[in-house]
Amino acid sequence: MLSSSRIFSTASKEPLRFLRFSSTAPVIPKTQKGVIFYKNNGPLEYKDIPVPTPKPTEILINVKYSGVCHTDLHAWKGDWPLPVKLPLVGGHEGAGVVVAKGALVNNFEIGDLAGIKWLNGSCMTCEFCEESNESNCPDADLSGYTHDGSFQQYATADAVQAAKLEPGTDLATVAPILCAGITVYKALKTADLRAGQWVAISGAAGGLGSLAVQYAKALGLRVLGIDGGPGKEELFKSLGGDVFIDFTKTKDQNKDIIAATNGGPHGVINVSVSERAIQASTEYVRPCGTVVLVGMPAGAVCASSVFNHVVKSIKIKGSYVGNRADTREALDFFDRGLIKSPITVAGLSELPQIFEKMEAGKILGRYVVDTSR
Amino acid sequence: MLSSSRIFSTASKEPLRFLRFSSTAPVIPKTQKGVIFYKNNGPLEYKDIPVPTPKPTEILINVKYSGVCHTDLHAWKGDWPLPVKLPLVGGHEGAGVVVAKGALVNNFEIGDLAGIKWLNGSCMTCEFCEESNESNCPDADLSGYTHDGSFQQYATADAVQAAKLEPGTDLATVAPILCAGITVYKALKTADLRAGQWVAISGAAGGLGSLAVQYAKALGLRVLGIDGGPGKEELFKSLGGDVFIDFTKTKDQNKDIIAATNGGPHGVINVSVSERAIQASTEYVRPCGTVVLVGMPAGAVCASSVFNHVVKSIKIKGSYVGNRADTREALDFFDRGLIKSPITVAGLSELPQIFEKMEAGKILGRYVVDTSR
Amino acid sequence: MLSSSRIFSTASKEPLRFLRFSSTAPVIPKTQKGVIFYKNNGPLEYKDIPVPTPKPTEILINVKYSGVCHTDLHAWKGDWPLPVKLPLVGGHEGAGVVVAKGALVNNFEIGDLAGIKWLNGSCMTCEFCEESNESNCPDADLSGYTHDGSFQQYATADAVQAAKLEPGTDLATVAPILCAGITVYKALKTADLRAGQWVAISGAAGGLGSLAVQYAKALGLRVLGIDGGPGKEELFKSLGGDVFIDFTKTKDQNKDIIAATNGGPHGVINVSVSERAIQASTEYVRPCGTVVLVGMPAGAVCASSVFNHVVKSIKIKGSYVGNRADTREALDFFDRGLIKSPITVAGLSELPQIFEKMEAGKILGRYVVDTSR
Amino acid sequence: MLSSSRIFSTASKEPLRFLRFSSTAPVIPKTQKGVIFYKNNGPLEYKDIPVPTPKPTEILINVKYSGVCHTDLHAWKGDWPLPVKLPLVGGHEGAGVVVAKGALVNNFEIGDLAGIKWLNGSCMTCEFCEESNESNCPDADLSGYTHDGSFQQYATADAVQAAKLEPGTDLATVAPILCAGITVYKALKTADLRAGQWVAISGAAGGLGSLAVQYAKALGLRVLGIDGGPGKEELFKSLGGDVFIDFTKTKDQNKDIIAATNGGPHGVINVSVSERAIQASTEYVRPCGTVVLVGMPAGAVCASSVFNHVVKSIKIKGSYVGNRADTREALDFFDRGLIKSPITVAGLSELPQIFEKMEAGKILGRYVVDTSR
Repeated sequence: MLSSSRIFSTASKEPLRFLRFSSTAPVIPKTQKGVIFYKNNGPLEYKDIPVPTPKPTEILINVKYSGVCHTDLHAWKGDWPLPVKLPLVGGHEGAGVVVAKGALVNNFEIGDLAGIKWLNGSCMTCEFCEESNESNCPDADLSGYTHDGSFQQYATADAVQAAKLEPGTDLATVAPILCAGITVYKALKTADLRAGQWVAISGAAGGLGSLAVQYAKALGLRVLGIDGGPGKEELFKSLGGDVFIDFTKTKDQNKDIIAATNGGPHGVINVSVSERAIQASTEYVRPCGTVVLVGMPAGAVCASSVFNHVVKSIKIKGSYVGNRADTREALDFFDRGLIKSPITVAGLSELPQIFEKMEAGKILGRYVVDTSR
Repeated sequence: MLSSSRIFSTASKEPLRFLRFSSTAPVIPKTQKGVIFYKNNGPLEYKDIPVPTPKPTEILINVKYSGVCHTDLHAWKGDWPLPVKLPLVGGHEGAGVVVAKGALVNNFEIGDLAGIKWLNGSCMTCEFCEESNESNCPDADLSGYTHDGSFQQYATADAVQAAKLEPGTDLATVAPILCAGITVYKALKTADLRAGQWVAISGAAGGLGSLAVQYAKALGLRVLGIDGGPGKEELFKSLGGDVFIDFTKTKDQNKDIIAATNGGPHGVINVSVSERAIQASTEYVRPCGTVVLVGMPAGAVCASSVFNHVVKSIKIKGSYVGNRADTREALDFFDRGLIKSPITVAGLSELPQIFEKMEAGKILGRYVVDTSR
Repeated sequence: MLSSSRIFSTASKEPLRFLRFSSTAPVIPKTQKGVIFYKNNGPLEYKDIPVPTPKPTEILINVKYSGVCHTDLHAWKGDWPLPVKLPLVGGHEGAGVVVAKGALVNNFEIGDLAGIKWLNGSCMTCEFCEESNESNCPDADLSGYTHDGSFQQYATADAVQAAKLEPGTDLATVAPILCAGITVYKALKTADLRAGQWVAISGAAGGLGSLAVQYAKALGLRVLGIDGGPGKEELFKSLGGDVFIDFTKTKDQNKDIIAATNGGPHGVINVSVSERAIQASTEYVRPCGTVVLVGMPAGAVCASSVFNHVVKSIKIKGSYVGNRADTREALDFFDRGLIKSPITVAGLSELPQIFEKMEAGKILGRYVVDTSR
Repeated sequence: MLSSSRIFSTASKEPLRFLRFSSTAPVIPKTQKGVIFYKNNGPLEYKDIPVPTPKPTEILINVKYSGVCHTDLHAWKGDWPLPVKLPLVGGHEGAGVVVAKGALVNNFEIGDLAGIKWLNGSCMTCEFCEESNESNCPDADLSGYTHDGSFQQYATADAVQAAKLEPGTDLATVAPILCAGITVYKALKTADLRAGQWVAISGAAGGLGSLAVQYAKALGLRVLGIDGGPGKEELFKSLGGDVFIDFTKTKDQNKDIIAATNGGPHGVINVSVSERAIQASTEYVRPCGTVVLVGMPAGAVCASSVFNHVVKSIKIKGSYVGNRADTREALDFFDRGLIKSPITVAGLSELPQIFEKMEAGKILGRYVVDTSR
């Protein structure tokens, strides 16, 4: 059973205790606690492992909290096309304090707060990096996938890609922003909407969806949420959403969505992992509108009628994780108190049980692990 | 058997004989020759029909030549979701001379050359018309579909939407530009590429494809053509294409395309009507690139892997016919001699036989009918 | 002395009394009250004048309220390069009820509410109209300038350009939205900013500025206001503005602005009519940022250092009045209660005194005239 | 007197002799020849200086050829606001071979061809670098200005920013592309034009102008050139330009330009360093068009009428040097033989005389120095 405490707060700005280390060099141990696995689907071992050494262009972060994402489950199971590093320390939503830095790092000082993102580092010289599409870099280095991640007390991150966190940031609630928050914010940018237009969030009451609704409102959009089941509408409305469609209750979902938005939403963000929901979004989207794909159900196909696609002149765009500017911007909305990040905190040692619950589909909202226990 | 003459030329600028009518009011007959049908799949009758009267906002055009498009076959068969007007005079690529105009028309004078497009008129007041997406207008009036078209000697057209043709334009060769030319030019704009980037044309040696290759070169793009069969590569190269992939010869089409473009084309124009070719284009397109759907095979579905769509951050956009600005621009490239329009000319009276050949898939290039015979 | 009543409200949605006319044909008189002048700077006569007859493409609006704009003063004085129609009925912010329509009008019904904008009509066929830049049409027809405007009880408007007002719209408070509101909204669109970025409004507490602040907040922007004098900061803050710079108090305005926005605002909207303020905006704008020119002080020049312009890669864009889509969108924000329109109501017969006060610079906020008195 | 040889060629692809060094480590001397000055306006000394050592993130380039730019003169004179490093080796258009690289460099191998640009390196972590606007980085490191440049046989360059040159590139003719070529290509991108539109090049027959004309044609634009004096029109036409306006002959330049482009050019590239020419460009540019500022005459001001700026809705944009993607693209056009780079080659030892001629305004075209003599 998990000894968790529920937190639901926006960023608080109180000085944190570890900031007093900033003037003197922090003591870095040789070993640390971390969760590691040696083969896919193998045991998740909570044990002493060596503290990594940063390269000249890296920082070493004393991770305080790390979010747990569905992607971490995929990395452990190894069921995605791209193979993971083995053995692997997972985790890609880590928030902590810089305790060491390589000789060439100029943008972080010891004592700064920093975040570990999915994109740990990239080549910075390919055509994708050149145009700030670093997540499309063929040599992308991925936290908790090809680079040991945030499920440990000390982790390395490329200084160019690591997220800068404002002094005083609440390190537990910011953790999910570092992947989930950036991802939905980037998806909304990809939809390329104007304030006042309608966006539909398919899967509005889930972990990504809850953040997407809030970011959408901060962008001045009108938000229609789609989800199903008890309590979902209340959650959606509490986040500022405008119109909710419960797919378990509507007789003709597409008709209802089109009616509520006076012609269909100008954009749709698919964070739901239902293939059928994705297909529906290509039908109810407004002519000249944009469907954005974010969630990646295993083996799923996005199928749209060519006739409809052409005559309605719609766009279907894939949106991957954000770049450095997206990260800075997504964090800025959080810093200004516009985004609430609802989390449940557990100990890092309890990660195996969290994975178990996640696989069983029993998790509501987002777990964040405290690396100190 | 068709008494046709093959023409392959760019716009010539010689004064045409009918321009001498411009100073005096042309005599407009009460009846004219046209091809009309009274029910879908019914007889195509070449006969005397009344000359229509233009509304106050319309012009009356003495159609000299009209292109024959695959869409005309769909209109006659009635196999598209949208019902046609009945009885119907088809045709939506008509080029001729203005012989009368409504009292409120200011942008055409008697004697001007004018073109009839697929979009005959639109409401000009809906949200789509307001933003120059008139082809997405829910009240769009379509030539040869909901409005009697260019398979007659005299046809009406909304003056706002009718195409202005430069004095001296060759009315036979310009006809296919009025639908096919505009359509591929708009598709290339929709792909949103920069000069120097690679565009793939899937179906490069067909009627639309041949025009697409030429427009792409005029935009400064590097063009990879995909098609199959004898003579196709030679045609493609004669139009200025750079690299040709014959899908009947390659062992791994996607691999060859990616190799030839050093990572995949930045954009793909799907004028081919193969569902499988469309799906392939979502695979070989460059990361962050754009797939454009243009051709509409009946009942076809565009299927893309969600994983690929997201991780490669690709876009799939539908592109319908162009608006007034697209029309002006597409004609301007033709006027400057950058686009050759290869046609076969037959008499309007021979239209039934042309439809027969078209249905049998026996047509190469584009037929244009001369309304005088 | 003016018998005015002060109103400060958002759009109320109560059914208005004149809507009962919608089912029966309204009685249209032969003559009406209006304010007319026969030569520039000549007497402004409040008198009986004929009710105009709409063209087939026009609607006749029973104007209930009309805003009074500084441009109306220019039209009367004739001190702008473009000559006005004479005699002239001024006014271009009219809100009222459709009482008659031309035979070709499909988008308005008798009884609908409608608004008269600066752009009364345009050719719809030039290259600017084709791309929805109708205000740049060389044949633009301007209300209260080249076309008798809204300082009369019955005025005509081109049905394509006339603004559609939602049933129940408050016709007094909506009047200034029809020019001032659309203008600042379009300027903000021209600045092309992202939610979360900083915009500076130069002249933030004036008539245009007050609206600009509110629209900027509705777009998710952070707003820095620049203005001077007592009460200005309070007004700015009451409208939701974030940071105020009083140019009468700061020792180094540019330095203060750059500090408050952490590097300079990403965009600047110049509604102030000070040439010096415009020049300053080219200095304090953030690198890669955008300066928008809106206000047009007579004979003013926008001067920017070429070195600064290039090295900081800034953009200076002129923004004229909005198009039909801008109009619809600006009204939609008003309809949703996000924009307060502070007005002072007077009788149409009092217009000469209002002009007098305006010329003396004694007007705060916006006057709206009631055409019934 | 200069012992120069005139070269006017596109990139040849012959294997260069130094490529045989690529398999074995090249021998790097301790000292080299270079041109150095110790104070602004002080003697330009051609002498033995130490070979610099690359940082872990830098490459060491054996510079074969370097272009000489007007900016080099400014650096020597110190007459720009930004102070230079002293002592300084100037030059920022260097082409050569990689002979050593820092331990962290992955994108260059010994023996690769590489180019030194104006932007030697940037922080890669500020908001400007994050969005690929590295030239706007406040910590930008500038070749031949704040970092010893290409007027020496061995120079260091940040590996992320250094230009990759294709094997076989002609190192003499490519040199001017590395600053002048990239700069005008970026300016054309900044103008944001569509193929088929008109661009005016003000200063079309100068060093930057000649390249701008060619890049503009490669982008599918119609080009109007403005310049004055004998031989200019012939040069312009030989580069593919469409219409030439000789300002020494026209009676009304603006009128002629507007007539030739049927309403004014859609974009203007100001490479001329005349303040008056810049002002004129704000007058003759087409409504809704874009004026781009590139050249930076000392102390110059760009003055535009606010009324004209607003009513014509024009944009005036500053364009600085290009980023990494602009560099790659500009070089690609050169590689494909679309850009001719006319140069005069002299010895590096002759640099003082070249500066003298440049200051006297006696240079036509671009000088390139050969570092071997």
